[in-house]
Amino acid sequence: MASWDRAAMMPPKGSEARAQALAEMDALLHRMRTDPGLVALLAQADGEPLDDTARSNLREIRRDWKSSNALPPALVEAKSLATSRCEHAWRRQRPDDDWAGFLLNLREVVRLAREEAKYLADSSGLSLYDALMDQFEPDMTSVEVSSTFGDLQTWLPGLIRAVRDKQASEPVIEPVGPFAKVAQRALSLEVMALLGFDFEAGRLDESAHPFSGGVPEDTRLTTRYYEDDFVQSLMGTIHETGHARYEQNLPRECLGQPIARARSMGIHESQSLSFEMQLGRSAGFIARMAPLLAAHFGAQPAFEAGNLQRLLTRVEPGFIRVDADELTYPAHVMLRYSIEKRLIEGEIEADDIPLLWDEGMASLLGVDTSGNFNDGCMQDVHWGAGLFGYFPCYTLGAMYAAQWFAAMRRSTPELDARLFAGDFAPVFDWLRVNIWQQASRWTTAELTQRASGERLNPLHFRRHLQARYLGVGPR
Amino acid sequence: MASWDRAAMMPPKGSEARAQALAEMDALLHRMRTDPGLVALLAQADGEPLDDTARSNLREIRRDWKSSNALPPALVEAKSLATSRCEHAWRRQRPDDDWAGFLLNLREVVRLAREEAKYLADSSGLSLYDALMDQFEPDMTSVEVSSTFGDLQTWLPGLIRAVRDKQASEPVIEPVGPFAKVAQRALSLEVMALLGFDFEAGRLDESAHPFSGGVPEDTRLTTRYYEDDFVQSLMGTIHETGHARYEQNLPRECLGQPIARARSMGIHESQSLSFEMQLGRSAGFIARMAPLLAAHFGAQPAFEAGNLQRLLTRVEPGFIRVDADELTYPAHVMLRYSIEKRLIEGEIEADDIPLLWDEGMASLLGVDTSGNFNDGCMQDVHWGAGLFGYFPCYTLGAMYAAQWFAAMRRSTPELDARLFAGDFAPVFDWLRVNIWQQASRWTTAELTQRASGERLNPLHFRRHLQARYLGVGPR
Repeated sequence: MASWDRAAMMPPKGSEARAQALAEMDALLHRMRTDPGLVALLAQADGEPLDDTARSNLREIRRDWKSSNALPPALVEAKSLATSRCEHAWRRQRPDDDWAGFLLNLREVVRLAREEAKYLADSSGLSLYDALMDQFEPDMTSVEVSSTFGDLQTWLPGLIRAVRDKQASEPVIEPVGPFAKVAQRALSLEVMALLGFDFEAGRLDESAHPFSGGVPEDTRLTTRYYEDDFVQSLMGTIHETGHARYEQNLPRECLGQPIARARSMGIHESQSLSFEMQLGRSAGFIARMAPLLAAHFGAQPAFEAGNLQRLLTRVEPGFIRVDADELTYPAHVMLRYSIEKRLIEGEIEADDIPLLWDEGMASLLGVDTSGNFNDGCMQDVHWGAGLFGYFPCYTLGAMYAAQWFAAMRRSTPELDARLFAGDFAPVFDWLRVNIWQQASRWTTAELTQRASGERLNPLHFRRHLQARYLGVGPR
Repeated sequence: MASWDRAAMMPPKGSEARAQALAEMDALLHRMRTDPGLVALLAQADGEPLDDTARSNLREIRRDWKSSNALPPALVEAKSLATSRCEHAWRRQRPDDDWAGFLLNLREVVRLAREEAKYLADSSGLSLYDALMDQFEPDMTSVEVSSTFGDLQTWLPGLIRAVRDKQASEPVIEPVGPFAKVAQRALSLEVMALLGFDFEAGRLDESAHPFSGGVPEDTRLTTRYYEDDFVQSLMGTIHETGHARYEQNLPRECLGQPIARARSMGIHESQSLSFEMQLGRSAGFIARMAPLLAAHFGAQPAFEAGNLQRLLTRVEPGFIRVDADELTYPAHVMLRYSIEKRLIEGEIEADDIPLLWDEGMASLLGVDTSGNFNDGCMQDVHWGAGLFGYFPCYTLGAMYAAQWFAAMRRSTPELDARLFAGDFAPVFDWLRVNIWQQASRWTTAELTQRASGERLNPLHFRRHLQARYLGVGPR
């Protein structure tokens, strides 16, 4: 809540006092998590006869304990300081295209992240990169990610080309702004209600970088409004509402226990993308949204449902990950994954990033980022903030989301007809039963198997893209 | 901040999780404050050669330590539970006029408050009631309050009568609503700016019960809007802005130290009342506000400065303390003080309150509250919430505020002319130097002496009321 407030409410001069308060809270929590008495308590619990729930809780408690106790406090503090400095400077350096300045700080962050990886790997027995990724996506390995992304790379560039050829002959009418902020906010609230957001247990506010936060009983999400472009706030709100409904529907009866927490960042992202991509860009949902746009902004030709769908599924390679469409987004992620993995494993240095970036963007998306750091390798906050191993979660989430919808279509063959009739309950019901209520009771692999009858299977993502963008295959 | 959020932002279903989080935070803080190791550290500090600042800090640390360690944890918890239950039920019982239901809970709260008073009195050597009042107004005694209020009672009823007679022949034009909420908010923000509120270090929001909270670097205040009455939000905002400027101007260089905290509730109230009553209802400030009202709500005869001043200084005995005017307000406080003091000292029981209330209101203000609990003895949250010894702070604050303005007029004889010219800097400068920057460096008596050259002297309050309401005496 204190972090939410910092992003959504806090006036600028509150910054230092807030940083101190959060640091003190972190120190208190760290002291609790590394209390030496926990060693004996965990060992004792392990020897007790436990039911499945207690056993799952113990598994999660042990995970927490291991990662909290793996790192020397001096390293935690050094990384916290280095990443604060790097991220803070980045906010000015990025618009200034100041790679040289950024690099000075980033080298130190990379050095500390490698040290962190070493400690985590020693404690977990995982490889260096996997040890970092495990903090966000437990049990996922770089062997699986590399294999999955390798497969993706065999067919995605061809698919992008085919879709772009097809779309070249499908003109899209552009919406004409401005779109008043109050109207965008009213539209956002109406769409959130349509998506089942519980306003008695959450809020919508504004922040520079949209996010979803809070606690399950009180989920706060944010968006940002551009008066010349309503799509960003609208689709951003739909994305965050997916995160929020997951949190709002975690199992009430065991909130506060580790098993009641969201499973992983990849699974979390599968919820936001189930909302933003799978449901939010479906013909049924777009048909339901079209009249709302006309109601809030006034009617215009661009808001006709067919045109709106073409607008929201237009594929266009670009520089910026967060602005990317559903089809080119994975390319942004694959590039970052390949760079950060080699960085952590010591194969390359921070100095090598721009060249690899330019080569990757040219090869994957055919765009030229040379000399453009702002829209190139300096665009994301992640590395400067010391987040290595996070990027794969975005595309894993897209794959999980496609897998959930494939499972939904098997159990509800008339799904698309029902969506088109404005009945979104089958989606929410399936997610509630299979994902939200399961929380962290199972490992990600078990959860996936139980929900969809198989392990993570990227084929569903490919089929979804082919069906939506080329009209190929069932649906 | 978590409390501010609960009142200003939190959706209803967040209530239980928030209560748990706050309780855990309280327990953590209590554990730190009652750490047995502190006894030796405090004794050791006492024996060290300390400068004045360190000595003042130690005085305040010892105060905190004493009050935190005086109460057995079981009593703290029992009182917390009983007052939560009583206050929660009161929210329904008050509109239902259900005194009998309220009494069932209140008896237990009174029992526990007496127990608390006993422990605090044993630890401090103060009398029972003084030990409770000392938590809000350190070093103030009931001997001084009783003497001050006794004096007040000799002249206030006569003054009220005289003023009412005078005002009977001064017709007031009523403002004609509705007053749109957005316009009220815009007006509030403009008036806060006029009063020097730093919006980079604070916010204005809405809550059911207006308050000022947060931290000195980030001061949050709230108001509430009634579309048929702009005066409540306007004067409420001015009141809270007084609290907020005190907090925003506490000495930066020692924030975090006990001497940098606001001195007491009475002194805090003297700041809100310096803004709301002394400055906010001065002819100069009202002349400055009059055109703002016309700008935000549209011109109307009621907004003429002279009429506005008559409106804002109209005296009318009523049932409700928080709605009372400057002249009748002390009567509400005196009644509560006399009842709660006898209650804590065991002279009367909670059952006796309604009769004493009705007698007091009839005698002090000539209004009949018999059988009307909602607008009578159930109107305040304080007693149900276990707050005994707080009420005197309101009227002490009004007296201190009058004393500050008397001192200002001595050091700036042209004060009223400058206010009338729209120059409010002399007020802010005097308060900054003499009150805000002094914080808790001195005891209240020392602070008062240094700021105004004398101890608390209720004569200034009387002179202020006579000058403002009867035009009698200097000014």
